[in-house]
Amino acid sequence: MNSKYNIVSLIRKKREAKTLTSDEIKYIIKAYTHSEIEDYQVSAFLMAAFLNGLNTEESAALTESMLNSGIVVDLSSVSGKKVDKHSTGGVGDKLSLILAPVVAAAGVPVPMISGRGLGHTGGTLDKLESIPGFYTDMNLERYIEIIEKHNLVLAGQTKEIAPADKKLYALRDVTATVESIPLIAGSIMSKKLAEGIDALVLDVKYGSGAFMKNIDDAIQLAETLVGIGEQFNKKTIAYLTNMNQPLGYKIGNWLEVEECVHALKGEGPDDIMKLSNLLSGTMIYLGEKASSVEEGIKISEEVIANGKAFQKWIDIVEEQGGDSSVIKDTSTYPIATYEFELLSKEEGYITSMNSFDIGMGSLELGAGRKSIEDVIDPVAGITLKKKVGDKILKGETILTGYTNKPTMIETVTELLYGAVEIKNEQPKSELLVTHVCDSKGTRAFEL
Amino acid sequence: MNSKYNIVSLIRKKREAKTLTSDEIKYIIKAYTHSEIEDYQVSAFLMAAFLNGLNTEESAALTESMLNSGIVVDLSSVSGKKVDKHSTGGVGDKLSLILAPVVAAAGVPVPMISGRGLGHTGGTLDKLESIPGFYTDMNLERYIEIIEKHNLVLAGQTKEIAPADKKLYALRDVTATVESIPLIAGSIMSKKLAEGIDALVLDVKYGSGAFMKNIDDAIQLAETLVGIGEQFNKKTIAYLTNMNQPLGYKIGNWLEVEECVHALKGEGPDDIMKLSNLLSGTMIYLGEKASSVEEGIKISEEVIANGKAFQKWIDIVEEQGGDSSVIKDTSTYPIATYEFELLSKEEGYITSMNSFDIGMGSLELGAGRKSIEDVIDPVAGITLKKKVGDKILKGETILTGYTNKPTMIETVTELLYGAVEIKNEQPKSELLVTHVCDSKGTRAFEL
Repeated sequence: MNSKYNIVSLIRKKREAKTLTSDEIKYIIKAYTHSEIEDYQVSAFLMAAFLNGLNTEESAALTESMLNSGIVVDLSSVSGKKVDKHSTGGVGDKLSLILAPVVAAAGVPVPMISGRGLGHTGGTLDKLESIPGFYTDMNLERYIEIIEKHNLVLAGQTKEIAPADKKLYALRDVTATVESIPLIAGSIMSKKLAEGIDALVLDVKYGSGAFMKNIDDAIQLAETLVGIGEQFNKKTIAYLTNMNQPLGYKIGNWLEVEECVHALKGEGPDDIMKLSNLLSGTMIYLGEKASSVEEGIKISEEVIANGKAFQKWIDIVEEQGGDSSVIKDTSTYPIATYEFELLSKEEGYITSMNSFDIGMGSLELGAGRKSIEDVIDPVAGITLKKKVGDKILKGETILTGYTNKPTMIETVTELLYGAVEIKNEQPKSELLVTHVCDSKGTRAFEL
Repeated sequence: MNSKYNIVSLIRKKREAKTLTSDEIKYIIKAYTHSEIEDYQVSAFLMAAFLNGLNTEESAALTESMLNSGIVVDLSSVSGKKVDKHSTGGVGDKLSLILAPVVAAAGVPVPMISGRGLGHTGGTLDKLESIPGFYTDMNLERYIEIIEKHNLVLAGQTKEIAPADKKLYALRDVTATVESIPLIAGSIMSKKLAEGIDALVLDVKYGSGAFMKNIDDAIQLAETLVGIGEQFNKKTIAYLTNMNQPLGYKIGNWLEVEECVHALKGEGPDDIMKLSNLLSGTMIYLGEKASSVEEGIKISEEVIANGKAFQKWIDIVEEQGGDSSVIKDTSTYPIATYEFELLSKEEGYITSMNSFDIGMGSLELGAGRKSIEDVIDPVAGITLKKKVGDKILKGETILTGYTNKPTMIETVTELLYGAVEIKNEQPKSELLVTHVCDSKGTRAFEL
């Protein structure tokens, strides 16, 4: 280990809001990964970085050192530009399960490593694992084998990928240093860059159900992520998307897989179809199978219409050990023992549906985790019958809840009533996407 | 332990620059002292407090909880108002050894608990222990016994005094969170309040040899210290004093004791006599043995002139195991094996003497510690022959160094040459004291 650095001096430097060199940042991460500096020193550094910030070069150095703390997958054996997508997490955000087969069916390899859910947002891995037999835990050889064969692989993060990020995240979690834009960005990008990608599409969410509650923070995060991507010569495009109400109508692991099956058949709800085609189209463009995002969107719509995307989905489910019969006929899947309806107490228009509360409600019904040890119930969750802007009558169903924990129904019902606002006037409809951010900067983009 | 608090939420609160309640601050310190929260959480909190600050109430709560982590000495058996003095540390600052016997001789009890030196500033305990046999390590009974008998006790900090401060300071030292005004103030005041005092005089130093390099920071520290004193109903007066050159002519443990002996006989250098009389006078005033600081100064001068202060010094040295013969005749004390002179390379006026560098030079000669394990050489140090403003000829001695480490002489000589600036024009003389700060605020005070 390079002993020319003194950790106390480096903490002091960041405390004084000075810029650390890339080598200094890399020393901190490397020394911490090798337990050569103490948790209490790194947490003091993280708080100083949280409050005084890290610039693009510092964020890139942080990302690089976390990336290089583990393996970086070499996908040179797979021809074509490899493209992945990352979402900062939302409620009902099942888009990865649609995009991945669509983009792969369009001829762009998608190496996708996903995480589990914690708190109010679901995780792609948990959704995938609701398909009986589906596994996401695999070694590197198998990972490469699957993508070589299908242009697609859906894997879980292994301990070989960015172990420094894992150690650092655990420390941030217990020291109130999670919600820092450069630290979040470094964590996301170190894991994505390790997959072996050439380009990346980002879905940066803002609003009641998102990590970033306001658009300004979300734009700052998007710009930091794109800036890091640029530093690594990976084309990166980020969309700023609205998470003020859940995406689609279904929240919960198997329920979301079911909604994706509909979408892959072209029968998904409007918001899901529009946003997933935009993101798929952008991935196809970055994968150089389309000369523009617009052309990419057309191709995305085509592979859905001609059944290639759905076939890709069946293929990957079978390849990764899943029972495709439940995908081919979703009605064969087991259902929750208890079902309850949230009935409207008044007549009017739905003016808001707080995503955070709906996500927490779904979690309490069994669909999520409060702590990492909690076990997910695949059939638990919520199906919305109405969304923001819809007219509703007194006594009409707002949503249906599914659970195997009957004792939770009362509490969740109360929580959900609080999450839904009904007023006399129809609300102005909100945009699904408001901005795009790439190497040329951030600008308005409406969808 | 009160489980209604969550440490992560409390760290987040300070991270967001919100004000913690007194109970929240007390929870953190108590839980940390009992190892119920982790070092890495407390260091993140300390960095947040460093960068976002603590207000007077938070600082008082921090002080109170550190104070109450150990014993608070009950000196009700000693009649009169007990008064102590604290200096934020300077080079050649031996004033405690003069003030303590002067004020005690004037009839004001002085319960003085001091620390050891680390870095460029010396510690009172190290100076006292250069007197053969003198001990400062004692139990509470003996501490009370000595002050009852002599109106004076000179003790070292025991582990019963503010253990939380000790644990917190060790953590701050390795996490770059030392130089925070409220944290420094809490640390100082928790130890001073534990002594059993009724009032306190503070010597807050600024300049090249001080902890606070500029006057504004020093004023802020003084006001924080006085604010905390007020919260505990202890009359507190702080002077802002200049540490741009060493105080007096001698730097080094025994050398400083020797200079104090001269001062107690009324033969000390001008700066030492003026400042020590001001501080003693203020202590005598706060001890209610004078109706004003001016009258206190007169009493201070009297007890020096009539020999009572020197006799008090002899008495306390003997009471605490010291060999008073070296005090009565300082020429009987052993001397360093090596002596060297720093000769002026040019003619002119001394325009500056960097106290920090001179302190570090003295440390390198054996008078100080770089780490807590280092052993002090009582005879090592520096005697200045000239001070700022003095005329000097080429070849004339600027200072004399004393050491038992001959290999250090070359390096220290170079350091000391760099510390002394000689120019053609006589510099404007600097004030020794510039401001006073008490419950009525901070105002100019010139000495």
